[in-house]
Amino acid sequence: MLNKLPSSISALLAIRADGHSLPAGLYTREDVFEADMDVFFHKHWIAIGLECDVPEPGDATVVDIGKTSLILLRNDDAQIRVLHNVCRHRGARLLGEGKTIVSKLVCPYHTWTYELTGELSYAPHMGKDFDKDCHGLKLASFKSIGGLIYVCLSDEPPEDIARLEEAMGPRLAPYDIDNAKVAYQTDVVEEGNWKLTIENNRECYHCSANHPELCVSFVDLDFGFDPEMLSPEDREQADEHFRLYEARTRTWEADGYPSAAIEQLVDCATNFRSQRLIISGAGESQTHDATAASKKLLGHMTRKDLGDTHLWGQNSWNHFMGDHAVVTIVIPLSASRTLVRTKWLVHKDAVEGVDYDLGKLTEVWIATTDQDADLVARAHAGVLDPAYRPGPYSRFSETNLNKFASWYIDRMQAHGY
Amino acid sequence: MLNKLPSSISALLAIRADGHSLPAGLYTREDVFEADMDVFFHKHWIAIGLECDVPEPGDATVVDIGKTSLILLRNDDAQIRVLHNVCRHRGARLLGEGKTIVSKLVCPYHTWTYELTGELSYAPHMGKDFDKDCHGLKLASFKSIGGLIYVCLSDEPPEDIARLEEAMGPRLAPYDIDNAKVAYQTDVVEEGNWKLTIENNRECYHCSANHPELCVSFVDLDFGFDPEMLSPEDREQADEHFRLYEARTRTWEADGYPSAAIEQLVDCATNFRSQRLIISGAGESQTHDATAASKKLLGHMTRKDLGDTHLWGQNSWNHFMGDHAVVTIVIPLSASRTLVRTKWLVHKDAVEGVDYDLGKLTEVWIATTDQDADLVARAHAGVLDPAYRPGPYSRFSETNLNKFASWYIDRMQAHGY
Amino acid sequence: MLNKLPSSISALLAIRADGHSLPAGLYTREDVFEADMDVFFHKHWIAIGLECDVPEPGDATVVDIGKTSLILLRNDDAQIRVLHNVCRHRGARLLGEGKTIVSKLVCPYHTWTYELTGELSYAPHMGKDFDKDCHGLKLASFKSIGGLIYVCLSDEPPEDIARLEEAMGPRLAPYDIDNAKVAYQTDVVEEGNWKLTIENNRECYHCSANHPELCVSFVDLDFGFDPEMLSPEDREQADEHFRLYEARTRTWEADGYPSAAIEQLVDCATNFRSQRLIISGAGESQTHDATAASKKLLGHMTRKDLGDTHLWGQNSWNHFMGDHAVVTIVIPLSASRTLVRTKWLVHKDAVEGVDYDLGKLTEVWIATTDQDADLVARAHAGVLDPAYRPGPYSRFSETNLNKFASWYIDRMQAHGY
Repeated sequence: MLNKLPSSISALLAIRADGHSLPAGLYTREDVFEADMDVFFHKHWIAIGLECDVPEPGDATVVDIGKTSLILLRNDDAQIRVLHNVCRHRGARLLGEGKTIVSKLVCPYHTWTYELTGELSYAPHMGKDFDKDCHGLKLASFKSIGGLIYVCLSDEPPEDIARLEEAMGPRLAPYDIDNAKVAYQTDVVEEGNWKLTIENNRECYHCSANHPELCVSFVDLDFGFDPEMLSPEDREQADEHFRLYEARTRTWEADGYPSAAIEQLVDCATNFRSQRLIISGAGESQTHDATAASKKLLGHMTRKDLGDTHLWGQNSWNHFMGDHAVVTIVIPLSASRTLVRTKWLVHKDAVEGVDYDLGKLTEVWIATTDQDADLVARAHAGVLDPAYRPGPYSRFSETNLNKFASWYIDRMQAHGY
Repeated sequence: MLNKLPSSISALLAIRADGHSLPAGLYTREDVFEADMDVFFHKHWIAIGLECDVPEPGDATVVDIGKTSLILLRNDDAQIRVLHNVCRHRGARLLGEGKTIVSKLVCPYHTWTYELTGELSYAPHMGKDFDKDCHGLKLASFKSIGGLIYVCLSDEPPEDIARLEEAMGPRLAPYDIDNAKVAYQTDVVEEGNWKLTIENNRECYHCSANHPELCVSFVDLDFGFDPEMLSPEDREQADEHFRLYEARTRTWEADGYPSAAIEQLVDCATNFRSQRLIISGAGESQTHDATAASKKLLGHMTRKDLGDTHLWGQNSWNHFMGDHAVVTIVIPLSASRTLVRTKWLVHKDAVEGVDYDLGKLTEVWIATTDQDADLVARAHAGVLDPAYRPGPYSRFSETNLNKFASWYIDRMQAHGY
Repeated sequence: MLNKLPSSISALLAIRADGHSLPAGLYTREDVFEADMDVFFHKHWIAIGLECDVPEPGDATVVDIGKTSLILLRNDDAQIRVLHNVCRHRGARLLGEGKTIVSKLVCPYHTWTYELTGELSYAPHMGKDFDKDCHGLKLASFKSIGGLIYVCLSDEPPEDIARLEEAMGPRLAPYDIDNAKVAYQTDVVEEGNWKLTIENNRECYHCSANHPELCVSFVDLDFGFDPEMLSPEDREQADEHFRLYEARTRTWEADGYPSAAIEQLVDCATNFRSQRLIISGAGESQTHDATAASKKLLGHMTRKDLGDTHLWGQNSWNHFMGDHAVVTIVIPLSASRTLVRTKWLVHKDAVEGVDYDLGKLTEVWIATTDQDADLVARAHAGVLDPAYRPGPYSRFSETNLNKFASWYIDRMQAHGY
C-alpha cells in the first residue's frame, strides 16, 4: 500500500521541525490550500490595492481573492468603499475584471441598481412588499493605512492591525501614496504555492546568483549572512556598510524620518516588518544605475537620499523611495498557482516621458519578478517530488523564513486546524 | 476551522427556501453534479436530437451526454435507433464526433462489425464457441415526439412522458419536423451550471436589458410582470397585448391549432410547458424584423400568422413558427460548463439563398444565445462567491424558476438524495 | 441514488473476470492511478532511458516519472548515476527538462553545489556546524542491461530482475547499445490510461486494420490467430511462415544468436518477453520496404538477416534489428494521459544523410505510434462510458493481454491493495 501522508492537516502542522521548511503537503495539498484561504485570506487582513487605484469619485476596480470578488471604489463624497461583487438577486457579478467608472452599480442581468454605498435603490418586478433595505450589497471591512488598502473578509477582523497602522502611518506620510498615481502594473502568475512566493521574498540569500539588476541598488547583506564565509575584503566591505547604515539611520531619524527596523512577525495575526534601508551605488532608487527614475519626487519628499522604506505584510511587499514606490500584492489562485501583482507609483502629477521614463522606472522589478517566478516554480516542482524532505533554513540568511513558517503553523493551529 | 457547508447533498436540498434561488452548493459542487447527471440525465427522459438529424437510411450522428456516447441513426428500413457507442470487445468508440453515413458499424480497433440494429455480425479470432448474440451493442430507450428524439438511459423510464406525447403530438403535427432539415447548428459552451442555463431560459425578466434582437418579435410580458411598476401607457399597451392574445388564441383554436398554455412543471418526472405565443411587430417569425426568414413554410403550414409554439423541456427549449423552428438542447459538461446546442430548421426542400437567407434565419438566436452565455457565466461566477446567498425570485416574472427549483429538489429527493 | 461503484480498489480487483478486460474503474479512477504509480512506477523496476542518452562524462538528462524527477548522468569516471533532481536545501529542481552538460550540479536557487556523485560540496551561509555529508542528493537504484537503464525508486527493488538481466545480456550484446546513438526521439501523449497503452502493444490483432506501414515488415500471425478463420490460402501461408520461422531460428541459434521466445509474464514482479522474429518482405528492417535504413550496422553486427529481437517490459517495448533499434518507454502522466517516448538508435558512427536517411529510419514507427495513440484514445473514451462492460479477450490473439491483466491484479494485491 501507499505510505500514506498523515491524513489530517493538524498532523502535518505538528510534524514540522523548527529551522526547516514545511512538510510537502502544507505547500501542495488542496485541502491545505482551502484552509489557507480560510485562515489567511478570509480571517486575516489582506492587502488588496491602493487608494490611488481609484483616485476620483466613481472610479471602481475589481479585485478577486479566491472565489471572492471585491469592488474597490470611491463614492460620490470621495470615500473609499469595498463591496462584494455579487448581486443580491440571483448572484450575478455586477462588474467584470479591471477598472471602470460608475455612477451607480447596475446589475446587467435584471437591472437591479445599487448606490455606490451599496444600498439597493431599484429592483423592478419585485412587488411593493419587497424590502430593498435587506438587499444591499455586502460591505467588506477595510482600512487605508498610508494609502494602502487592507481588507478583512471576516466579521471579526484581527485587532492587531493597530500596530501596523501605528507604525506605518508616520513612516508612509511623507510619500503621500493617496495622491500618487499607478504608472504601471503587471500581473505575473507564479507556478507555485503562495507560501513559496512569500518565502522567496523573505530572503536575499538567492539574490546574488539570480538578481543582477536588483543587486545594483539592493544590499543583500541586510538580510543576513554567515560572517565566517566572507573573505577578509568582503568582511571589511560588510563592516563598512553597517557603519554607514548606522550613521545614515541616525541622520534620518534626526531629520524626522522613522527608520529603525520594526517588526511583528510572530505571536500575532497581522504580520509585518519595516525598515529604512540604504540604497547602494548612486543611492537614490531601485533602478539600473540606482539614480532616481522620476524627476518629480513622491508626495512631500524633498530628498532622494532617504533610502528604501521596505514593508512586508502577510501577502505583500513594498518599497518606498524618494522618487517612486513599488507595491506588490500576492493572491493565491490554487495550491500551485499564485498571482503576483506589482504596481509602480509616481507622483500623481509626474508626466511619462517628461518627468520619468517608464522603462527605467520598471525594468529592475520586472526582471526581478520574472526571475523570482522561475525560482518559485522550481521550488514548487521540487516540493511535489516524493524525494523532497524539509530542508534546513540558514540560521544567518533565512531566519525570517523560519519566523514565517512558525507563524504559519501557529495561525493555522489558532484557527483549529 | 472552515465553516463547513452542510456535508450531505440531502442537507443542501433540505435548506432551500421556497421563493429563492438554490443554495450555492447545488449549483457548484462536483458531487451534486454527479447526482444531477444520475437523476436528470440518466433516469429522466432527455432531448438529444431530431429525426431530421438522420434523414436517410444509414445516416448516423453521435451525441455525447456526459461520459455516455450515443449513436442516433436511421437503419435500412428507415427506423430510428439509438445505440451506445461502445464496442462490446474492449470498449472502443465505434464512431467519432459528428455526422457520418454507415452501412454497418465497424469498430476501427479490431473490426468487430455490428448491423445498424446493434446486432454483432462479425468478430474475428474469437473462436467458434464465441456467442455473438450476447455481444450486440446496447440499445437506449427513445421516443420520437413530433420528430423530436427523447432518450432515457435508465431501464425504468418515467411513464409520465405520455402527457408530453399526448400534448405535443397534435401541436407539432402541422410543422412536420420529421421532414424538416437542419439548416444550421451551433454549439455554445456556457461557463455555468446547467440549472443556471435553464433558469435563464425560464424568464424574460432579463430580456429588455439584454436581448434587443429578440425583443423585436418576442413579448416579455408573456412571461410575467409586476403590474404596479408599469407606467399608465405601458399598462395600456399590456392590456392591449393580452386582449389581442385572447382574440388570436380563439381564432387559432377555432382553426384547429391547439394554442392554450399546457404545462406539467411540478409533481412529475418529465417536465414541459407549451403555449402558442403572439409574435409581435410584423408577427411572422423570430427575425430581425419579425417577417418570415423562409418563403417555403414548414411542413403542412399554409399560414405565417400562427405565432410561436414554444416548448420547454427539462433540457431543451424550442420555438416552432410558420417558416422555421429553433430547437435547443442543453447538455451539462461539468458542474460549471454546459453545452447549448441550437438547430435551425426549415422545410426540407427549402433552398438556401433562394427560399431563405441563412443570416436572417439565424441572427436573432445566435445573438440571444451569446448574450445568455455571458449572463449565465456572470451568474455562475457569483454563485461561487462565498458572499452569495440565495436571492428572492420575483413572484411576477420568476414564478417558473421557483417551479423549476422546487421540481429539482423534489426529483433529487425522490431518488434518495 | 447513484449505483455506486465498489468503493474500494480491492473490490475492483476482486471482481475482475479471467479472460476479460479490466473493470472500468481500474483504468479510469484517480485513486487507482495513485496506486498504480505506487506499485508499478515506484516499487517495480522501470525502463527510463539508455546509456547512450548520456554518452560522454558530464552528459546529463532529466527523466520525469510522475512527480519524481530523475537526473540520468555519466560522471567523470564514465560511470552512470541516477540522482533525484531535488535540492536538499529547499527542494528546488536542479536541472530543467532535456539534455545538458554539467561539471557539477549547481542549484540555481542558492548555489548549493553537488558533485556528479551526488555529494554536497558547497552550501554557503549554512554555518560551520552544518553537516554537508547528510545533505547529498538522493540516489536511485538502477541497472544497465545491455545499455538499457532500469530504475527502481523503492528501497527494496524486486530481485527477479535477475532473470531479465540473465536473458537479455547475451541477446543484446551484439547490438552494443551502449555505443549506439539516439538518431531521433519523439514524445507522444496518448489520451488514455497507461494499461490501455500496454494492452494495445501486447497484441497485433489490430495491426492489419490499422498499421499498413508496419505490416510490410511485421508478421501479425506471430502474435496469435484463430486458425479456423483463415481461408485455405491464408492457412497455407501461415504454415509456410511458421516452417520458415523454425528453420531460421535453428540457423540463428546455431550461429550463436539466442532466438527462442523467453518470457516471465506472470507470477513475477519484473515482467518481460523476448523473441527473435522474422522480418517479412525484404527481411532486413522495420522500414517502408523492409530493407535496412542504415548502411552501418549496429554494434558488432555483420548481418542484416538476424530479424527483430523484440523485448517487452512493464513499461517498454523494443525492437533490435541489424541496422537500427527502436526503444519505447511508457510513462503515465495521469489516469487518462500517457507519455510514449520513442528513440531510434543507430551505430554511433553512422552519419545522417550518408549512412542513413532519417525519414526512412523513422517513418514506420512514427506512423504506427500515431495510429496507436488514436486507438488508445478511442478505447479510453469508451471505458469511461457507463455502458462499458469488460469484454472478452480473444483466446488466440489476446492471450498476452489476459496475462498482463492477471499480472496487474496479482501485483496490486501483493502490495496490499
